[in-house]
Amino acid sequence: GFAKVDNHRELRNGFAEVIYCAGKTPTQVQGIVQVMRRDGASILGTRASKELFKSVRAIAPEAVYYEDARCIVIDPKKKKQEEPLIAVVCAGTSDIPVAEEAAVTAETFGYPVDRIYDVGVAGLHRLLGEMPRLRQADVVIVIAGMEGALVSVVGGLVDRPVIAVPTSVGYGTSFHGITALLAMLNSCASGVTVVNIDNGFGAAYSACLMLKMNERRINH
Amino acid sequence: GFAKVDNHRELRNGFAEVIYCAGKTPTQVQGIVQVMRRDGASILGTRASKELFKSVRAIAPEAVYYEDARCIVIDPKKKKQEEPLIAVVCAGTSDIPVAEEAAVTAETFGYPVDRIYDVGVAGLHRLLGEMPRLRQADVVIVIAGMEGALVSVVGGLVDRPVIAVPTSVGYGTSFHGITALLAMLNSCASGVTVVNIDNGFGAAYSACLMLKMNERRINH
Amino acid sequence: GFAKVDNHRELRNGFAEVIYCAGKTPTQVQGIVQVMRRDGASILGTRASKELFKSVRAIAPEAVYYEDARCIVIDPKKKKQEEPLIAVVCAGTSDIPVAEEAAVTAETFGYPVDRIYDVGVAGLHRLLGEMPRLRQADVVIVIAGMEGALVSVVGGLVDRPVIAVPTSVGYGTSFHGITALLAMLNSCASGVTVVNIDNGFGAAYSACLMLKMNERRINH
Amino acid sequence: GFAKVDNHRELRNGFAEVIYCAGKTPTQVQGIVQVMRRDGASILGTRASKELFKSVRAIAPEAVYYEDARCIVIDPKKKKQEEPLIAVVCAGTSDIPVAEEAAVTAETFGYPVDRIYDVGVAGLHRLLGEMPRLRQADVVIVIAGMEGALVSVVGGLVDRPVIAVPTSVGYGTSFHGITALLAMLNSCASGVTVVNIDNGFGAAYSACLMLKMNERRINH
Amino acid sequence: GFAKVDNHRELRNGFAEVIYCAGKTPTQVQGIVQVMRRDGASILGTRASKELFKSVRAIAPEAVYYEDARCIVIDPKKKKQEEPLIAVVCAGTSDIPVAEEAAVTAETFGYPVDRIYDVGVAGLHRLLGEMPRLRQADVVIVIAGMEGALVSVVGGLVDRPVIAVPTSVGYGTSFHGITALLAMLNSCASGVTVVNIDNGFGAAYSACLMLKMNERRINH
Amino acid sequence: GFAKVDNHRELRNGFAEVIYCAGKTPTQVQGIVQVMRRDGASILGTRASKELFKSVRAIAPEAVYYEDARCIVIDPKKKKQEEPLIAVVCAGTSDIPVAEEAAVTAETFGYPVDRIYDVGVAGLHRLLGEMPRLRQADVVIVIAGMEGALVSVVGGLVDRPVIAVPTSVGYGTSFHGITALLAMLNSCASGVTVVNIDNGFGAAYSACLMLKMNERRINH
Amino acid sequence: GFAKVDNHRELRNGFAEVIYCAGKTPTQVQGIVQVMRRDGASILGTRASKELFKSVRAIAPEAVYYEDARCIVIDPKKKKQEEPLIAVVCAGTSDIPVAEEAAVTAETFGYPVDRIYDVGVAGLHRLLGEMPRLRQADVVIVIAGMEGALVSVVGGLVDRPVIAVPTSVGYGTSFHGITALLAMLNSCASGVTVVNIDNGFGAAYSACLMLKMNERRINH
Amino acid sequence: GFAKVDNHRELRNGFAEVIYCAGKTPTQVQGIVQVMRRDGASILGTRASKELFKSVRAIAPEAVYYEDARCIVIDPKKKKQEEPLIAVVCAGTSDIPVAEEAAVTAETFGYPVDRIYDVGVAGLHRLLGEMPRLRQADVVIVIAGMEGALVSVVGGLVDRPVIAVPTSVGYGTSFHGITALLAMLNSCASGVTVVNIDNGFGAAYSACLMLKMNERRINH
Ligand SMILES: Nc1ncnc2c1ncn2[C@@H]1O[C@H](COP(=O)(O)O)[C@@H](O)[C@H]1O
Ligand SMILES: Nc1ncnc2c1ncn2[C@@H]1O[C@H](COP(=O)(O)O)[C@@H](O)[C@H]1O
Ligand SMILES: Nc1ncnc2c1ncn2[C@@H]1O[C@H](COP(=O)(O)O)[C@@H](O)[C@H]1O
Ligand SMILES: Nc1ncnc2c1ncn2[C@@H]1O[C@H](COP(=O)(O)O)[C@@H](O)[C@H]1O
Ligand SMILES: [Mg+2]
Ligand SMILES: [Mg+2]
Ligand SMILES: [Mg+2]
Ligand SMILES: [Mg+2]
Ligand SMILES: [Mg+2]
Ligand SMILES: [Mg+2]
Ligand SMILES: [Mg+2]
Ligand SMILES: [Mg+2]
Repeated sequence: GFAKVDNHRELRNGFAEVIYCAGKTPTQVQGIVQVMRRDGASILGTRASKELFKSVRAIAPEAVYYEDARCIVIDPKKKKQEEPLIAVVCAGTSDIPVAEEAAVTAETFGYPVDRIYDVGVAGLHRLLGEMPRLRQADVVIVIAGMEGALVSVVGGLVDRPVIAVPTSVGYGTSFHGITALLAMLNSCASGVTVVNIDNGFGAAYSACLMLKMNERRINH
Repeated sequence: GFAKVDNHRELRNGFAEVIYCAGKTPTQVQGIVQVMRRDGASILGTRASKELFKSVRAIAPEAVYYEDARCIVIDPKKKKQEEPLIAVVCAGTSDIPVAEEAAVTAETFGYPVDRIYDVGVAGLHRLLGEMPRLRQADVVIVIAGMEGALVSVVGGLVDRPVIAVPTSVGYGTSFHGITALLAMLNSCASGVTVVNIDNGFGAAYSACLMLKMNERRINH
Repeated sequence: GFAKVDNHRELRNGFAEVIYCAGKTPTQVQGIVQVMRRDGASILGTRASKELFKSVRAIAPEAVYYEDARCIVIDPKKKKQEEPLIAVVCAGTSDIPVAEEAAVTAETFGYPVDRIYDVGVAGLHRLLGEMPRLRQADVVIVIAGMEGALVSVVGGLVDRPVIAVPTSVGYGTSFHGITALLAMLNSCASGVTVVNIDNGFGAAYSACLMLKMNERRINH
Repeated sequence: GFAKVDNHRELRNGFAEVIYCAGKTPTQVQGIVQVMRRDGASILGTRASKELFKSVRAIAPEAVYYEDARCIVIDPKKKKQEEPLIAVVCAGTSDIPVAEEAAVTAETFGYPVDRIYDVGVAGLHRLLGEMPRLRQADVVIVIAGMEGALVSVVGGLVDRPVIAVPTSVGYGTSFHGITALLAMLNSCASGVTVVNIDNGFGAAYSACLMLKMNERRINH
Repeated sequence: GFAKVDNHRELRNGFAEVIYCAGKTPTQVQGIVQVMRRDGASILGTRASKELFKSVRAIAPEAVYYEDARCIVIDPKKKKQEEPLIAVVCAGTSDIPVAEEAAVTAETFGYPVDRIYDVGVAGLHRLLGEMPRLRQADVVIVIAGMEGALVSVVGGLVDRPVIAVPTSVGYGTSFHGITALLAMLNSCASGVTVVNIDNGFGAAYSACLMLKMNERRINH
Repeated sequence: GFAKVDNHRELRNGFAEVIYCAGKTPTQVQGIVQVMRRDGASILGTRASKELFKSVRAIAPEAVYYEDARCIVIDPKKKKQEEPLIAVVCAGTSDIPVAEEAAVTAETFGYPVDRIYDVGVAGLHRLLGEMPRLRQADVVIVIAGMEGALVSVVGGLVDRPVIAVPTSVGYGTSFHGITALLAMLNSCASGVTVVNIDNGFGAAYSACLMLKMNERRINH
Repeated sequence: GFAKVDNHRELRNGFAEVIYCAGKTPTQVQGIVQVMRRDGASILGTRASKELFKSVRAIAPEAVYYEDARCIVIDPKKKKQEEPLIAVVCAGTSDIPVAEEAAVTAETFGYPVDRIYDVGVAGLHRLLGEMPRLRQADVVIVIAGMEGALVSVVGGLVDRPVIAVPTSVGYGTSFHGITALLAMLNSCASGVTVVNIDNGFGAAYSACLMLKMNERRINH
Repeated sequence: GFAKVDNHRELRNGFAEVIYCAGKTPTQVQGIVQVMRRDGASILGTRASKELFKSVRAIAPEAVYYEDARCIVIDPKKKKQEEPLIAVVCAGTSDIPVAEEAAVTAETFGYPVDRIYDVGVAGLHRLLGEMPRLRQADVVIVIAGMEGALVSVVGGLVDRPVIAVPTSVGYGTSFHGITALLAMLNSCASGVTVVNIDNGFGAAYSACLMLKMNERRINH
């Protein structure tokens, strides 16, 4: 009785049900999973430790764990063809957990992802070398910590919606992601919108909504 | 010679050229307009005072001024049919200038806009009464100052991408829009991305990129 | 001799004596409890760990521990009838510890509580479905983390005093409750007052003072 | 058509309609006043300049202006008897405008006010000398800038709900009221709730809701 | 060779040598103590854990440890008569460690201390009951966390220099002492100066300099 | 009737009555001056514009205006001999208004002042050249903006109480004095206490209390 | 007598004397100029209005005013040959005043400057097109507001010391240059050091010291 | 495949390859080291724990660990003669880890270092006693926590580029290095540039670029 599961969601948008696992006990998560499965929903659990995954698998043996992403996935949508495509771009290896949270979320919701990692602007040739892949994307998620300059450079190079995710990577005046967040909000490139620090999930959710709106219009 | 006009933009994305007029002298803006017109570009000038508009009109008589939006528009794209549709939603009358900056930007770029103003959550019936219009939208821009709660409520009610614009409306601890910004970044509704304080232009630019990506895919 | 127990309080307002246990040693708390019990006071200990409770029970066997609320209660007022009623409303399951601190405080001081939990605005139907219960309340305590939008929505729906408690739930720019606090201070709904982050006790104390003022006037 | 007047309010809570005049043009305020008067509502306009008042008086000759409070009042509730009583307490002469906004609001809503001004804690005898008046109050609004210590002292001396209003009075690290706000949120006295900086209106609104809830219960 | 011991200090001001032990290894502190003792200096070590004390006692058996104060003292000045007198006043039991750092520092430097603890303003009678002791003091050190109101009340009641020490006691918006610090800097009482958060040592050092200046002038 | 003049002060501490003129109307200040003069008090008005001074002189012809200090003085204590001496030290010419507020305050309260101006640490020889004067002082007030390093250097060179006053001089990250304030609170020199930004008055008041305490002890 | 002119400087480093004119009266600046000219120094006045310049020219007819830079120059060093070379790079036209302060300072101190303006990263081709000029520089000063990403891109492309100057250009969360400053301090490119917001002078001063150190070693 | 090693760097600037080890797993670091060694690069690993070093030594037996500096070095450049010289100056013993990170970096890149430690301004004679060594330096790195005043004093005494490194040493309002950072950005001494908190590596990198630019010009 502790949580009111919102089982309208999948009906409305066709995405999986999502459980934000941080700060929930194994018992609480198990309870929510059980209610959701009864409704036949596919399920995504974010911010989940490996221990939590084990409790979930005990009651839902088909559950899969993505370690870098810290995500539990139950019965995801089957991956679509090559298109529409979400590029997930990140600056450094420390940003990969956030990038993977975004990528796994998008894939669970049924959209293919192109991972373009470790292309920070300090060595610009790395990013420029990936321009052909970047240009294939319909939506671009850019993930960076420290000063977040990658967002402005990517935003200037592509004509697609850019969703920026600041990460808490850095030290001293990186202020656990605040500097990257502020830089992204003030990007001199147009077409950039921003989500909370380390919120890979939220970026992917928004990207998928953009593509789904798109589909609705095509099918219309 | 003071500014390097970036005349690649319209080629790339088919949008008008944009001049951010704040802090530029009339002479600087006139110079930029002249170069752009030579290339036949349609032009949007934001953050423009009425005085600045007069200097622009002196050299470009077809220029139009939108007072609430503080925008100058030259030769906009002809408005398309009813679809795809951007809803611009705002909480109070003080948010209207930012809302109009967004609306005029989107219309100048060729997308129709539905303005749903003064529907702040303190009187929830006002927003709920507009649900039919909200449901027609392909993308929703939500504009609010103070505590920005409108974003979370709208985000929970629609299944479309929501772009949130915090405004500098409020006093004391509204901190000129920081409180609204933080609230929007922490929205409990999924599918919300955020732009800088008072950045109606940026929200509309991103909304149009989402719809244009859509068109490309339809034409594809 | 380390603490000057303020034994004027129950005389003045008829509430239990309160011990803020955070940062006090078991010996210190035992000492305070002993002095208070000598005066026959009922006692509420907040922010108490289970370990601390055990030390207290050793000298006061009638002590009861409320785990979620982290409260120790000794000899509370007997619960009154159905009225006057305090509604304790919270947004998500992570806010429950703060909500319980408020609820247990109010009950210890002798007022009945209606717990309306997990009704965050991302799924507005959950809150709207509880309107009948909300309308019964004489005072409403609203508890939320993240962007705290629930406060504005509740504040717009009821005509009762609303006491808002920001919680430290969230991550990144939730800044351990600062975002929720700022949002609540800037609520566009009138009739909202705010207490410190996670201060469920303080909200309930104020609610009880409002109801007691009421009683005095009735008896007058 | 620029504003959606919320004419449900007076029906619901019996208070006057309120217009927040800051940032509204004379024409906008006149328009709102005309709609409200058509419904026979009593009206309170806050943050109104003398110039704005003149525009309002032109269309509503019965309007009255309170200069210190910067409030316009049209057709207020007739003042009740001596009870229930709101004490408005302030620390220094610079806090008087905020105190008057609170006092005029409460009086417009029909509740009597006892003004206890210039009793800051630097000369404690001034406050202690007013204890008899303070003890008569049913609700106490305490208004202070700088370090806001008056709130804690009053909160320790009375057994009534205390609503604290930080003011932007001070310089340097007073940070336009942030220091007072933080001090009030951390008051060591129980029973204190807080509103936004300089928000005398909001404090009075909440105080009146407390007293009205009270009346409902008496009449019940 | 790692530290340049400043052995001019005792010559200049007659106080003990001081070692700030936080972040120094036992070996480093032992080394510094050995050099200082060679010069016959009396020594005060602040922010010292019990473990660190044991290493010091191993090479300086006359060393004494003050647990609450977390201070090591070697060969302090003999305590003078009753005068001049430093009052160390604190608001709550959680402030005692900082108060003791101040008291032990002053006593080590040769000045008598009157400890007036647990007299926070929420129960004003506790402070007013100690006025006779407060009036005896030549300098008053006031130590408080949370909203720090005690400083303004004491400052208004005495005609002596008041040194305010904010402590990191509190939660939420107490911001680990920042709120108390800001409140103290903005005290409406004249004659208050402030030191860093939790800096009991610094407050006592300044108090002793005031009294020593005094002595010089008497002996002059 | 707007202000409660605190006429206990001069009795208690023998200093002049002080009026903080900022934000008070000429009529308010005149009223306060008239009450105070009736009691024969000497008066210091700080933060007073030249215009305000003219209103005061109209009713108190003996009033004198100190332009740099922005102070009005009526009937000051006669200056004492050469001792005890307050040194007022400042870093740059822009700090002089704050330095003069301190100096005029001290002189009005009856203590002689040695002004040592424009000795910022960027040219250390300027400060070192004034060591003989610095060593004469009983209390040292150090006034600096920007990074406030002068405080630490002076604090290391003298064995007297140092009162540090941060000024709002600087730009960008000087944050109107916050940087200087923080630097002073963290001074590595012992014996430094701090007052609010630009608070020359408060520093002098505290310095005078230190010297008066001294006198009391001498006369004792 | 108000200012201690530091006439050691030119002797020591061979640069012009510098007057920071902000907040100095015309009389003060004239006085300082007169003392300096007596010593035959070349003089640079920064943050000087055109009005101030006129007062200076009245007593020093050879003075020249640089309007964009807001600098007064008297008798600058004669410009050297093409080397060593300082590149001054800026992102947008609004950054030009700060860029010019840097350029004029460097030229006054005797070093040639290559101005590379309006090459912000939103249109990366503009910067890449200037690589040949950038590669000629011995030191690079990069000036940008908003998110300051230009610094990281330049830092990654050159092997020279980069001095970053954040400007107060932007709005909302640009926080008058704080965002750019933080971004620059956290640049993922190595070899970047940072100065205060809008401090073009300081950047150029440091650049010249680097080149002068260089010369000393060559002549050695 | 997780990281794109940037093997252009040593070619371009002749420095060692650098690995920022914080937050990388031993496997990741081993992988990067292996790729780099294949190219024959010399390698510097910063922010490396002793455990991480052991994993590296397992695959690169010639690796050396500098414990204070927390650096791993493989095949450094051979140390040059006495010149050009970098002075690394620090205020207290707690700053030594950051100072050592700077010193080891510079030495690894081939430049000699003079370590001048524990010369904080509270005892100015310590710094003044080292002036002869300071005057030998070509570039000076100054490292300090707390209020960072050492930077301004050194900057005023030398005519060389000063690179300031704030450290996170201190407590309370030192805010983990922010106070020192702000102080350094606002230094009244010219010729100071600043890097991120605790960024000894970055300071040394910039110092080496200055000296290398120098060499290029000599060889030119
Ligand atoms: N990593 C995440 N960051 C932010 N929001 C999330 C995250 N994961 C899930 N959510 C949101 O949290 C909601 C579920 O919260 P709950 O009901 O507490 O499990 C989902 O509907 C999402 O909107
Ligand atoms: N001084 C004030 N401070 C804060 N809120 C106010 C104030 N005056 C009015 N309000 C609120 O603003 C609402 C009216 O806003 P508006 O519709 O913009 O005129 C009222 O219902 C009040 O809740
Ligand atoms: N608790 C403390 N807080 C602030 N400063 C202290 C403290 N204890 C000692 N100090 C100062 O630190 C100096 C010694 O520092 P150190 O040389 O690092 O041991 C002393 O001279 C004091 O000025
Ligand atoms: N624009 C500037 N920004 C920062 N510091 C400056 C500037 N112009 C001059 N200065 C510094 O200010 C000193 C002169 O200050 P003053 O003695 O007040 O004129 C010079 O030596 C420079 O170090
Ligand atoms: Mg783009
Ligand atoms: Mg939604
Ligand atoms: Mg309501
Ligand atoms: Mg009370
Ligand atoms: Mg006093
Ligand atoms: Mg000293
Ligand atoms: Mg580089
Ligand atoms: Mg220098």
